Amino acid sequence: MSSTISAQNAEYMKHLGEKARKAATILAKTPAQVKNNTLNTLADLLLKNAEKIYLANEKDLIAGKEKGLSEAFLDRLTISEKVLNQMCIGLKQIAGLNDPIGEILEMKPQPSGIQVGRMRVPLGVIGIIYESRPNVTIDAAALCLKSGNAVILRGGSDARCSNQVLGECIQEALRLNYLPEESVQVITNPDRELVGALITARKYVDVIVPRGGKSLISRLMEEATVPMIKHLDGICHTYVDMSADLELAWKVCDNAKTQRFSPCNAMETLLVNKNIAAIFLPKMASIYLEKGVELRCDPESREILTDAGFDDIKTASEEDWSTEYNAPILSIKIVSSVDKAIEHINQYGSKHTDSIITNNLVSSQKFLREVDSSSIMLNTSTRFADGFEYGLGAEIGISNDKLHARGPVGLEGLTSLKYIVIGHGELRK
Amino acid sequence: MSSTISAQNAEYMKHLGEKARKAATILAKTPAQVKNNTLNTLADLLLKNAEKIYLANEKDLIAGKEKGLSEAFLDRLTISEKVLNQMCIGLKQIAGLNDPIGEILEMKPQPSGIQVGRMRVPLGVIGIIYESRPNVTIDAAALCLKSGNAVILRGGSDARCSNQVLGECIQEALRLNYLPEESVQVITNPDRELVGALITARKYVDVIVPRGGKSLISRLMEEATVPMIKHLDGICHTYVDMSADLELAWKVCDNAKTQRFSPCNAMETLLVNKNIAAIFLPKMASIYLEKGVELRCDPESREILTDAGFDDIKTASEEDWSTEYNAPILSIKIVSSVDKAIEHINQYGSKHTDSIITNNLVSSQKFLREVDSSSIMLNTSTRFADGFEYGLGAEIGISNDKLHARGPVGLEGLTSLKYIVIGHGELRK
Repeated sequence: MSSTISAQNAEYMKHLGEKARKAATILAKTPAQVKNNTLNTLADLLLKNAEKIYLANEKDLIAGKEKGLSEAFLDRLTISEKVLNQMCIGLKQIAGLNDPIGEILEMKPQPSGIQVGRMRVPLGVIGIIYESRPNVTIDAAALCLKSGNAVILRGGSDARCSNQVLGECIQEALRLNYLPEESVQVITNPDRELVGALITARKYVDVIVPRGGKSLISRLMEEATVPMIKHLDGICHTYVDMSADLELAWKVCDNAKTQRFSPCNAMETLLVNKNIAAIFLPKMASIYLEKGVELRCDPESREILTDAGFDDIKTASEEDWSTEYNAPILSIKIVSSVDKAIEHINQYGSKHTDSIITNNLVSSQKFLREVDSSSIMLNTSTRFADGFEYGLGAEIGISNDKLHARGPVGLEGLTSLKYIVIGHGELRK
Repeated sequence: MSSTISAQNAEYMKHLGEKARKAATILAKTPAQVKNNTLNTLADLLLKNAEKIYLANEKDLIAGKEKGLSEAFLDRLTISEKVLNQMCIGLKQIAGLNDPIGEILEMKPQPSGIQVGRMRVPLGVIGIIYESRPNVTIDAAALCLKSGNAVILRGGSDARCSNQVLGECIQEALRLNYLPEESVQVITNPDRELVGALITARKYVDVIVPRGGKSLISRLMEEATVPMIKHLDGICHTYVDMSADLELAWKVCDNAKTQRFSPCNAMETLLVNKNIAAIFLPKMASIYLEKGVELRCDPESREILTDAGFDDIKTASEEDWSTEYNAPILSIKIVSSVDKAIEHINQYGSKHTDSIITNNLVSSQKFLREVDSSSIMLNTSTRFADGFEYGLGAEIGISNDKLHARGPVGLEGLTSLKYIVIGHGELRK
């Protein structure tokens, strides 16, 4: 990605951008029924064109193997029958959600006589940048369409044949429902400069949503001038308070760490109140060690575990407290109070998701109020930080930012509220 | 403003930033009562220190006169008894508003058993950059304090003596109420590089709110890397529909243009439906001309007015449609339908505030839904676009942006919503 864009690429982005802007004007006023029909048509078209899609995907896979891409990478790139079916299920689910657009929030009369309310409207044009995962092409297009936004999609270049065919299916679905084809535009040109052009196209793009790993996002942050809805690290904590129900704590801490290791909402650091550490920690450690989790302890917790007969427990370094492992590794620290737990989390955490296990009302209120993260939990697993689990119906990403959208971002995160004012000839005095 | 910051200024900003971050942690959990007491204490201190404030202000005024600043500039710089009293009234009003912090929006049970809601929290540290208007120092400090945010204020250097004394009063009020002095920090060092340092201090500042003219804001936009809540142009329209109540239309259009000429929410372009133009325009023109408003008309409206006996009506140029006059000048255009009016507004407007005058339900609904501006009005004056008129209780600015805050921004615009999740030992499956 370069900070100067060639004239040709700038021209191409202008072309895409102008078309997207036009399409956005139409999408903003498209009724829910038409948007839902388009999503259902697309699901049908994906099944109808399954062979064509597999063939294009096969091309990407062959090129990827030749290029020596990793197994995990190729796995994410693959459109199996199961993946295709999941795309269709996803489309039908999004079609089934309530249309967020046009909703009017409150309508309050003011002393002057005017009534003031807010109406939910689309953001306009969204740019989505993602890795070589073709399912994101369908998912992102569907979320943007449902929320009345035009979208420009730029997937990883290793998926370009797949994205090309998926893009054709999307545009056919749009055409069949009399919506502008340019509502969803897929950039399959592998030139990386186009990513740079997209994230700086302030005139045409209202927000960028990157979907992918931390390295992708940090790279985009360097150069983007269009605002982004993004998330970086997920360094999530669970704090087991003095008045925790220990049975509950063992189960929840187990789930938060071991249900899956790689997601951003998995726990990375366990904080334990000093008054219950000697009872709580040994059983907790057995659960983790049995599941192959490496423990990195502060001196106090290490001593407790060593005294309880655990050998070779590692000592955590200062760096461990700010590390997102995404792996079967857990750092453990003893704290003297809920205040110290909050202090540790606000210092070392990533403002993602943190949980307290307690039966004490004051501790729980303090924790919920004072931890400065996008999701704060009480007596449950950090793994619940997710758009579907939160009842948003869909998720375009999780935001660590404080402005606009914070935490799991559903359709609402792709909308804005404008003021509407109903008068009866009132004049300003 | 330069894009490289000297080591000394970088160090100074780091110093301010770290202190602001610490103060923000405390403010976030400060009860409403303490914040309100502080605002009331400050009002008392301003009156108690009135002589000291006038003296410092006098110094600024003398220096300003020597420098040859304009009358209008010096007027805004002046702290008269009236201005000081207004500061105190403003403080007491803000103290009287509900505390936005800690509010919990809905708390919905999910299929898993967890309950999910959102809690309103401060943004953290706010940077405010403004021109040489010392009243903004008090107003901005009060809004940030009430919304639980720490703030770094950088006012115009021509007001530095005034701001110095006002800053001392603020810090004394904080001290007297046991809040950290660094909750409000005033930069009085006139070095312009410090503005550059503030708007790029992403680590320490969560959002910049510039308060001032378009030139200040465009300049800041060039270099800021901290997100901004800002507004640029106010090119506001009124569209008089075919089914308008003409008596109402004359009054509202008069008010929208002439009640005051300089505010951003004053009308700049009047759009008139062709079917009523011949009846509506002549009387409208007399009203405007009597008040000294210059009319710049498209050929059709010019013809109507000429036929009606008006001489020397100017022809609008293409540029007029996208000009914010902030002056007794109005552009007028005939359109054939509400659709054409919407098209014109979305093309030439600034997404600020636009109004339709009509008694037709379909036209009104279309206009409210399809005009892409931060405030859309029906049968009333664009001059109502204002935080106080909207019942927000206060206004930190008006935002033309779509992300985060749109339209008049009150205390809520300085807050964020975090998710809170209450569980009972639920595990993710």
